[in-house]
Amino acid sequence: MKYYEYDTDDMIAALATPWGESAIAVIRTTGQGCIEALSAAFDGRKKLDESAPYLMNYGTLKDPGTGRKMDEIIAGIYKKPRSYTGQDMVEIFCHGSMAGIMEILKMLRSIGFRDAKPGEFTLRAFLNGKMDLTRAEAVNEIIKSKSVKAMDIALQRLSGTVFNRINHIKNLVAEILAGTELMLDYAEDEADPEATLDKEKIEEAISLLKELASTYKIGKIIQDGVSVVLAGKTNAGKSSLFNLFNKRERSIVSEIHGTTRDYIESFLLIGEIPVKLYDTAGLRDAENPVDNLVEQQGIKKTIEIMEKSDIILYLVDGKAGLDNDDISRINSFDSNKLIKIWNKADIALEKSPIGFIDICALTGEGFKELELEIKKRIGAEKIEVNDAVIIDSERQKNLIDEAIKALSNSLVSVNENMPLDLIAVDIKEALDSLGEITGEITSSDILELMFSKFCVGK
Amino acid sequence: MKYYEYDTDDMIAALATPWGESAIAVIRTTGQGCIEALSAAFDGRKKLDESAPYLMNYGTLKDPGTGRKMDEIIAGIYKKPRSYTGQDMVEIFCHGSMAGIMEILKMLRSIGFRDAKPGEFTLRAFLNGKMDLTRAEAVNEIIKSKSVKAMDIALQRLSGTVFNRINHIKNLVAEILAGTELMLDYAEDEADPEATLDKEKIEEAISLLKELASTYKIGKIIQDGVSVVLAGKTNAGKSSLFNLFNKRERSIVSEIHGTTRDYIESFLLIGEIPVKLYDTAGLRDAENPVDNLVEQQGIKKTIEIMEKSDIILYLVDGKAGLDNDDISRINSFDSNKLIKIWNKADIALEKSPIGFIDICALTGEGFKELELEIKKRIGAEKIEVNDAVIIDSERQKNLIDEAIKALSNSLVSVNENMPLDLIAVDIKEALDSLGEITGEITSSDILELMFSKFCVGK
Repeated sequence: MKYYEYDTDDMIAALATPWGESAIAVIRTTGQGCIEALSAAFDGRKKLDESAPYLMNYGTLKDPGTGRKMDEIIAGIYKKPRSYTGQDMVEIFCHGSMAGIMEILKMLRSIGFRDAKPGEFTLRAFLNGKMDLTRAEAVNEIIKSKSVKAMDIALQRLSGTVFNRINHIKNLVAEILAGTELMLDYAEDEADPEATLDKEKIEEAISLLKELASTYKIGKIIQDGVSVVLAGKTNAGKSSLFNLFNKRERSIVSEIHGTTRDYIESFLLIGEIPVKLYDTAGLRDAENPVDNLVEQQGIKKTIEIMEKSDIILYLVDGKAGLDNDDISRINSFDSNKLIKIWNKADIALEKSPIGFIDICALTGEGFKELELEIKKRIGAEKIEVNDAVIIDSERQKNLIDEAIKALSNSLVSVNENMPLDLIAVDIKEALDSLGEITGEITSSDILELMFSKFCVGK
Repeated sequence: MKYYEYDTDDMIAALATPWGESAIAVIRTTGQGCIEALSAAFDGRKKLDESAPYLMNYGTLKDPGTGRKMDEIIAGIYKKPRSYTGQDMVEIFCHGSMAGIMEILKMLRSIGFRDAKPGEFTLRAFLNGKMDLTRAEAVNEIIKSKSVKAMDIALQRLSGTVFNRINHIKNLVAEILAGTELMLDYAEDEADPEATLDKEKIEEAISLLKELASTYKIGKIIQDGVSVVLAGKTNAGKSSLFNLFNKRERSIVSEIHGTTRDYIESFLLIGEIPVKLYDTAGLRDAENPVDNLVEQQGIKKTIEIMEKSDIILYLVDGKAGLDNDDISRINSFDSNKLIKIWNKADIALEKSPIGFIDICALTGEGFKELELEIKKRIGAEKIEVNDAVIIDSERQKNLIDEAIKALSNSLVSVNENMPLDLIAVDIKEALDSLGEITGEITSSDILELMFSKFCVGK
């Protein structure tokens, strides 16, 4: 088959570590002939193509064209089929020099390697039977996981929990299909009064699939997290609340990003849920005329962030009270994602209006209630994920839904005494959807779509 | 000895790849007992402490405390003394998940590892006789090199070129010293008319040291590069010139940095010199009232960048001519780093004033002359570095200068017929300085200062 119109066993290479100066960088290569090709670019105690598998070979990487010494490296050798991709592989551990990495990649191109597409190593692992598609997706989920919980769940998937669950259901559906086919074979000749379609088995399969589908929402939240924006007027206490969150919740190491004048962001764990919390700095310090103008751009950015966010925490300064400006802003938000907060409740002159949560961002009073409300709003008051099989792949979710739909159709048909061969078509469809989840049935398009979301080098 | 008050053979660990999501991350560990400690945290086909050296072991990393499965990893084993540090080492190749990396580092702390200090792996390599200090510095220089040329020179240093040169000179000085001591032994008893101090040898040593010291300036420029700022009034053509540089010169991959409204930067190679080119965007679009105010902050930033820069390219719009504003700005700059440019020379009404370089940033006319002037200004018109031994370490340069000074003093003393034992003191001092360069003579303070500039994990 082809991937992005490329062969799936030619020599590919990619930087597998993040781009930047560092002690070590890893350049990964795989494909037919990669060990021999790199052997010609390597001077060590032993030739690379004579190295035993799983051995780390210390030596000099050189440009075989010019003879130029490029770096002192360790070359790790894997021989097919006992490698990640199922093909020969060489992993180059070199100095994390940006100039050096670029030159090595350039040299690799000159000796016949091409740049790997995203996920192409894992794609090859799939094509060579090293893992099914649920495990392949788990590899990417592991890398992208933002909390220990997300990592744990993805590791379970990598060990095959989703595969096993799907497989179990698939066997069930295959049995049902076999039953229909048996009945079809005999139906015309001799009516077997015992041979009824096993409705209970269909119901069981639907119920198992629904259970799995229902884990998607929480799986997605654990994996991707939610974004929460602090909004409100200048003196409502957004910064105090922002600081309170950072003090009270476990912080996730922040992603690398530039500083900006428009907003501040912070990564937290609320319970097991990764939360990206935004404080919209563009709305602060409105007294200063310079910032007042900068603010115009800040407000634009703020609105953008709010539109994309999952939760908006709108703060009102309880001491100053609610004014028309607050009311019109509150009304402009999607009420499903809005949580209204009555800040400085301890020194407020009036009681909070209905629907507001009382807090004092400075002392932390009321914070627990707010935290609970956030969890409730994202459907995560109680997550029981310890032993559950949880999915977070939209692709898997859609295919499960298709299988449920096809099986439900078959059930309707059974109840309406529709012809058996029509029912069999639905059941076959469900079986195909389940086969697509694990990758038994697949196409280049599906694979391209799926693996294009991966890191390069994986 | 101690390093940052720590032992130098205890178990240390560090992320050796850049921090971020990626296919693979490498966590490096070394120290007495590290293989055994990690063996207890690893489930594979073989136990880690039974693995052969240089073998990559596939298996599951687990928390030995809780039994929790942490990741599927490859563990690379090195046994002392045949490792980078000269101690036992385990390199963990894990998924590049940020949550996963943090947890692994946390687990390692719980089983007795401590976080490695910058450069601590290479420090141990030095302490265990795997490399001298000039090679150790070369490791860091390789990682930080910004061009192929810089990398080449650093690789030469890693292979021992500086060490060999210093060693050669050191032997020369040691011979001189031995000569003085021989003379001192006999001087009182029986005057040997043949025994004169070898002045020529001292002169030769000084000359060799001066030659090496003279390479520092160019070594430094090749390694660290220079920063060039475009300055001038709004319509002088800064952006056109900025674009021209980017079109004409080879670009270095940009470092990771946030976008900012204040300036744009670009990494280029002018000849073999890495150049960081700044266009001060804060000074553009002065018509727009919003940007006019933003400009006030932009100007501040611009002044900051100019103060730090090596070269300022001041553009004047030749068509508009030079005005008092230009003149006062030009006078405010350090003339050593100022290059004055007469832009739009092709359509200018007047000829350029003396000291200006004529260019047309739009067509590229005059660019070569400008490029040459920049090279001249940084002392890099002609770099002959192919076979030369070049240093770029300030530490090495200072010690070479000290040795030169001591030897020069001894020469003066010889000419003034000072007592031999006084001369010997100077020569001994030179010898010690040279010994410090390679690390024969050293102290914790010096090592801390030197290795603190390294990456963590190296």
